[in-house]
Amino acid sequence: MILDIINKKANNYELTKEELETIFMGYLKDEVKDYQMSAFLMAICINDMSDSEIFALTDIFIRSGEVLDLSFIDAIKVDKHSTGGVGDKTTLIVAPLVASCNVPVIKMSGRGLGYTGGTIDKLESIPGFKVDLTEEKIRRQAKEIGIVITSQTKDLAPLDKKVYALRDVTATTNSIPLIASSIMSKKIAGGADKIVIDIKVGNGALIKTMEDAKRLESLLIKIGTYYQKEVRTVISNMDRPLGHNIGNKLEVLEALDVLKGKEKGKLLDLSLELASKMVSMGKGISTEAAMKEVKENIKTGKALNKFLEFIKYQHGDIDNLEIDAKVYNIKANKSGILKDINALSIAKLSESLGAGRKNKDDKIDYNAGIIIKKEIGDEIKEGDILASLYTNIDNKEFNLERIFEIS
Amino acid sequence: MILDIINKKANNYELTKEELETIFMGYLKDEVKDYQMSAFLMAICINDMSDSEIFALTDIFIRSGEVLDLSFIDAIKVDKHSTGGVGDKTTLIVAPLVASCNVPVIKMSGRGLGYTGGTIDKLESIPGFKVDLTEEKIRRQAKEIGIVITSQTKDLAPLDKKVYALRDVTATTNSIPLIASSIMSKKIAGGADKIVIDIKVGNGALIKTMEDAKRLESLLIKIGTYYQKEVRTVISNMDRPLGHNIGNKLEVLEALDVLKGKEKGKLLDLSLELASKMVSMGKGISTEAAMKEVKENIKTGKALNKFLEFIKYQHGDIDNLEIDAKVYNIKANKSGILKDINALSIAKLSESLGAGRKNKDDKIDYNAGIIIKKEIGDEIKEGDILASLYTNIDNKEFNLERIFEIS
Repeated sequence: MILDIINKKANNYELTKEELETIFMGYLKDEVKDYQMSAFLMAICINDMSDSEIFALTDIFIRSGEVLDLSFIDAIKVDKHSTGGVGDKTTLIVAPLVASCNVPVIKMSGRGLGYTGGTIDKLESIPGFKVDLTEEKIRRQAKEIGIVITSQTKDLAPLDKKVYALRDVTATTNSIPLIASSIMSKKIAGGADKIVIDIKVGNGALIKTMEDAKRLESLLIKIGTYYQKEVRTVISNMDRPLGHNIGNKLEVLEALDVLKGKEKGKLLDLSLELASKMVSMGKGISTEAAMKEVKENIKTGKALNKFLEFIKYQHGDIDNLEIDAKVYNIKANKSGILKDINALSIAKLSESLGAGRKNKDDKIDYNAGIIIKKEIGDEIKEGDILASLYTNIDNKEFNLERIFEIS
Repeated sequence: MILDIINKKANNYELTKEELETIFMGYLKDEVKDYQMSAFLMAICINDMSDSEIFALTDIFIRSGEVLDLSFIDAIKVDKHSTGGVGDKTTLIVAPLVASCNVPVIKMSGRGLGYTGGTIDKLESIPGFKVDLTEEKIRRQAKEIGIVITSQTKDLAPLDKKVYALRDVTATTNSIPLIASSIMSKKIAGGADKIVIDIKVGNGALIKTMEDAKRLESLLIKIGTYYQKEVRTVISNMDRPLGHNIGNKLEVLEALDVLKGKEKGKLLDLSLELASKMVSMGKGISTEAAMKEVKENIKTGKALNKFLEFIKYQHGDIDNLEIDAKVYNIKANKSGILKDINALSIAKLSESLGAGRKNKDDKIDYNAGIIIKKEIGDEIKEGDILASLYTNIDNKEFNLERIFEIS
């Protein structure tokens, strides 16, 4: 039976919802083995899925676990998701910014694996910050200050989690239908009414081509429509890191600078775009009106205050963020114009400094990371400092190849 | 690295021999996991393999274990292989027939799994028959009577065995390149100089279409040429069972009848075709001349005598072959012409009677099986006996659906 289903997909026939349920729920119950599921996932990667297969799979993922009930908040709940990028700390900026516009943000976030950073890790780098909140505390905080970010307390879409872990080790991560149903099932189980999704495309992202990004965008919107959840998207470049700082505590510091109005550039622009879409959806106003409000709240410090209030509510000590690590400066070995900064290479370097996990249970060094000191287009002189590396690892054999392109 | 190789195949690029070696030898050493290999095998099933990939894989399979040295026999060693069918007892007929023409046959055979019978199981159904021979005994018997069939004593192509077991449970059995390299690596490791291969095609076989059979034929000959081993093929139908008897001891009895000249029909015809090709290759004579000799040796009883000599040498008691089982007759539930006998359904029924193994370590009932009593085209009257079932299982709820088509 299971072999017949795998075979049907391998021969490029459309599967029924019952067939998908048999194999996927069988996998959740350990009746279908890892080696059978990975063969099946590979067949999906190569032969693709139809829209109705994708809707069915999303549904199976959602129903595999609990669905969060956020009805205690009497407002539209807007969530935000990013497909993951290097230096992407937008949630730290966007969540308080949106909350400062009186649109509540209740988010369950994840930890990072590999070179993808997780919001929860970044928040935990703030001394004292608590990510495991009781339901009682989540409700109270949501009502009092309109912003909560916790680690996943409920068992949301556990089947997606199990499938994702297998995809990670079997070269079956880059299937657009699998990515789409994974994202949407988690967001819908998380209780969102409306969702803004930041699709990262480039060498430092899971999605490498604009064609794939467009396909994903279309699928996310279709799945949203199917569930009557409005979805809006942003497609943003991930050939280069987002912002200057990479690494957990360093990214909190950069987010603070953005909220203080000290930063310009792509990180600010993307944060404003995401926040204005969320506010527009949450309040039912135009994106232009929302953008105006959002910019105003940066300027007046309302967004910063909301961030500080949020950190304090979850017991974080924001005044205690010194970086406790040795610093190594990378210097330019020739003069010229800085043409490119490779996101994937930066991510791997940051992981090697201690800022990322290789395995699920590895400890992260919150102090480790990179500050990029130059912008694309800058004129560089030989010996100029291009970046500072922060690490507590003694081995100073850093792999600096193909990070900075000067010509 | 492993993920890069899987990904390359998933994206339909040709792999180098080094890449194939990395993933397959890694699998033999348990460094590559089952779930990674099954994803990779599925990518091969869907995206196919180039000729040079197939040659490389065959080579990796061969070098994963020992290669049999049959040089102690001063003659051309011709081996025979069948891709597996229902009621296929041709090896029991062909091996003594060829040996009776003074072409030596030294075969290492396997046991059956699922509804495919194994030659070793059939021989073991003869009381006293020994399949585990010492090397010393194999050499002596080969020199004295020119025929030996043993179970696999050497570790021939162990990687193929490991990959095959995984393919069996992951719906990745029907890849023509994987089938071709599996067959050829085993035969070459088995020490053959020349090989005759019986490609079964039909609902009771692994290969379902003539197109696939032709592709497999062409690949087997190409791999043979690459290794300077002459390969000749026969493509034979497996929509219907071969011969009348299915089940281990029952098949030995039918083989005996063929060697005694008592049987006509497809089983005899195919056996003559395979044997004449082997004799032609072994002696370097025309197929016509070989066919004449082969037919003569059936008529004169030389082939039968060689079979009896062979059984005696390996301690079998051929005079003691009564079937020790209860008999149930299947009767026609309507009158008409017998249009079809479904090989796959017969095979499943036979397995359910106790004649096959579901798992590797299951015990077989050598007495269990089926004798088909009617031929295609026979006029059937309601109540006629179509087949007799032999079993020691008490549950008489046999699944007789879709076996006999009368109209």
